[in-house]
Amino acid sequence: MNTLERYQILFNKINQYSSGDIGITRVAYTKEEQACTQAFMRMCKAEGMDIRMDECGNVIARREGRVKDLPPVLMGSHLDTVYQAGKYDGVVGVTAALEVVKRLNDKGIETDHPIEIISFACEESARFGVSTLGSKAMVGIFDKEKVRSLKDRNGITLEEAFDLCALEIDNIELASRKNEDIKAFFELHVEQGPVLENAHKKIGIVTGIAAPVRYSIIIEGTPSHSGTTPMNMRSDALLGASEIALELEKIAKDEQNFGTVATVGVLTIQAGAMNVVPGQVEIKVDIRSTSIESRQRVINHLQQMIQSVGANRKLKIISHEISSEEPVLLSKDIVSVTESICQKRDIPYQIMVSGAGHDAMNMTKLCPTGLIFVPSVNGLSHHPDEFTELHDIMIGIDVLEEVILHYAGAGTSGTVKVSHE
Amino acid sequence: MNTLERYQILFNKINQYSSGDIGITRVAYTKEEQACTQAFMRMCKAEGMDIRMDECGNVIARREGRVKDLPPVLMGSHLDTVYQAGKYDGVVGVTAALEVVKRLNDKGIETDHPIEIISFACEESARFGVSTLGSKAMVGIFDKEKVRSLKDRNGITLEEAFDLCALEIDNIELASRKNEDIKAFFELHVEQGPVLENAHKKIGIVTGIAAPVRYSIIIEGTPSHSGTTPMNMRSDALLGASEIALELEKIAKDEQNFGTVATVGVLTIQAGAMNVVPGQVEIKVDIRSTSIESRQRVINHLQQMIQSVGANRKLKIISHEISSEEPVLLSKDIVSVTESICQKRDIPYQIMVSGAGHDAMNMTKLCPTGLIFVPSVNGLSHHPDEFTELHDIMIGIDVLEEVILHYAGAGTSGTVKVSHE
Repeated sequence: MNTLERYQILFNKINQYSSGDIGITRVAYTKEEQACTQAFMRMCKAEGMDIRMDECGNVIARREGRVKDLPPVLMGSHLDTVYQAGKYDGVVGVTAALEVVKRLNDKGIETDHPIEIISFACEESARFGVSTLGSKAMVGIFDKEKVRSLKDRNGITLEEAFDLCALEIDNIELASRKNEDIKAFFELHVEQGPVLENAHKKIGIVTGIAAPVRYSIIIEGTPSHSGTTPMNMRSDALLGASEIALELEKIAKDEQNFGTVATVGVLTIQAGAMNVVPGQVEIKVDIRSTSIESRQRVINHLQQMIQSVGANRKLKIISHEISSEEPVLLSKDIVSVTESICQKRDIPYQIMVSGAGHDAMNMTKLCPTGLIFVPSVNGLSHHPDEFTELHDIMIGIDVLEEVILHYAGAGTSGTVKVSHE
Repeated sequence: MNTLERYQILFNKINQYSSGDIGITRVAYTKEEQACTQAFMRMCKAEGMDIRMDECGNVIARREGRVKDLPPVLMGSHLDTVYQAGKYDGVVGVTAALEVVKRLNDKGIETDHPIEIISFACEESARFGVSTLGSKAMVGIFDKEKVRSLKDRNGITLEEAFDLCALEIDNIELASRKNEDIKAFFELHVEQGPVLENAHKKIGIVTGIAAPVRYSIIIEGTPSHSGTTPMNMRSDALLGASEIALELEKIAKDEQNFGTVATVGVLTIQAGAMNVVPGQVEIKVDIRSTSIESRQRVINHLQQMIQSVGANRKLKIISHEISSEEPVLLSKDIVSVTESICQKRDIPYQIMVSGAGHDAMNMTKLCPTGLIFVPSVNGLSHHPDEFTELHDIMIGIDVLEEVILHYAGAGTSGTVKVSHE
């Protein structure tokens, strides 16, 4: 059995844990997800690793290093999914990490630094509306009072869900780790976008993560009869919303060089009916960039647009910020090391940003962090048809293995020195 | 008690019949609506009229004429409402008709032709999705097989609703009447639009009814992650929908001289989420004009637009016609008689079209038909705040009374001759 076949078996085993008929549903802190996590811990144990689950449900599997008291190099991602998900998001990073350890074991390679596989809990916001809880807890930015009472679609609170997993939300602080305790963190992930596929690249080396700023915009016009209200006597809220959506696209396209994107993903007409000119529409806007300046230009333009559309169409338009997260930059050192590896191996790669949030985003607060992408077919994400070629995952694992060996120190010359930026 | 006070009492009595807390809810073939109808029949009986309910639930109250075997002149509207309606739509026309009869009784006026008050059943489509059932049945275009199984929001079929009202849907044909049996029909109705108010007119004399053609348009793009999909790699279905909505507005504005209107009243994003570029959007379009040619130009332009937006944005756009009703023209003779009455009485009036459907629309198939509007404050319709000044209703009743006397023949010179166009 070659490593590809071995990896495929591992990958399939993980994806046996699912509920429902469509795609994979393995939502955070559920029976399926906990069973999957336990199975993964047993697989790590079988590779000789020390396993534990921390107070937030993160799995930490440790392979000791040969030099005493050096901080570990971490790699991983998450095993939880959205509802009706695909098989790749998160799973690739966790299973790749285990495959790396298997290879080291096969080859009998010892590293100076310990190596840890992390399977983060509750990366997806699908169940409770908040994302990357596990990595937030590890970094120590988990606000338990804010999230304790959050409910899932069945009315179960996050606290109750913790309880069912034999976790105590009150102990969550014990999951946090210190900067000096970790050398670096690496996450291999599917791109969830079309960039690599379109550019015919196999590896994406991520320099930054473009966290979203989100707005709810309420557009208020006058509901009126679609038959009896002449075109020039209407205050049509939907047409105002349409102008904002199209103008937002134009602004974001002007900022494309900064990797900036803007999306209206939600539009709701209040009491919409075929014979009623829409009187009130809500749109929800998501704007992302790794450049704070570029993102701010889009926001400013959006606010101006709200003024002018409101005035021209006699609409009352009110926007409020739902959330705003800071974009983060990843370790330049790791980017450059990863780039060298790709060049040496002749792997077509692309330096890029991530428009999606990842646990890596939080981990930057704790240690130098690297994020490596493999291509997503058709850029499809959070969908049963999400797909990445097995061969492409193997290329990702090759790169992950080499970068881990680089940072964990496996050369005969001992530890490779890397500055903490 | 003057006629205004008398009318107000009648109007308020009718609006006592309602369910729910918000506005008036007196939906077709319900307890409230039937109780209201029965009360109205008793009121007509008290004025010496012959009353009956036909096989569709239409109320027919008859005041005999003095010349034997002449066909009756009809006037009326409907008492059923949408959910959470106002007090005026339909009710004004039915109560005005009764007030006209009361005035004739007060003055001891006999007419050559009989006069009938009609309270049509199920004018609103709110409950079963089909409108003007009562007048359709009277005209003989009620397709019982098509509507028998239509269900309301509680799963009750139209047939069952008939049954609960002691009506037999299988006898519906008996409700139809013949052309030679009716001399003319008149409906007084609130405008449901802002035209009269904006033009400071008290009476709208309607020349035609702009029945809608309706389309469902499905716009299919590619759902993708809002963070990871660069702006130039998107097929955003919502942006395609936005372009169609805005362009449709532009076309309809170009056709404004024909009274043409076009509206997107429904827009639904499939699985819309803040972090997903919309992959599929459905819009529902309503286009109305009394000019078939103008309406067709809008439809043609819409179809071209679907082609070009689809091509430019790599969207698959499919439209299908939900319904298409023919615009109808009302009696020119009646328009001209009504105009003379307004001129003689110095009432500011406007010749106009109706963008909303009415029972009058069907009645044109049976007899010369007139439709008279009174102003709607803020053009508000199908809303608890729907409002028309009582004084304006009284002006409408004055005009209705005079036009009825004209056609029913109350002059000493006997019957006024009117050509059936």
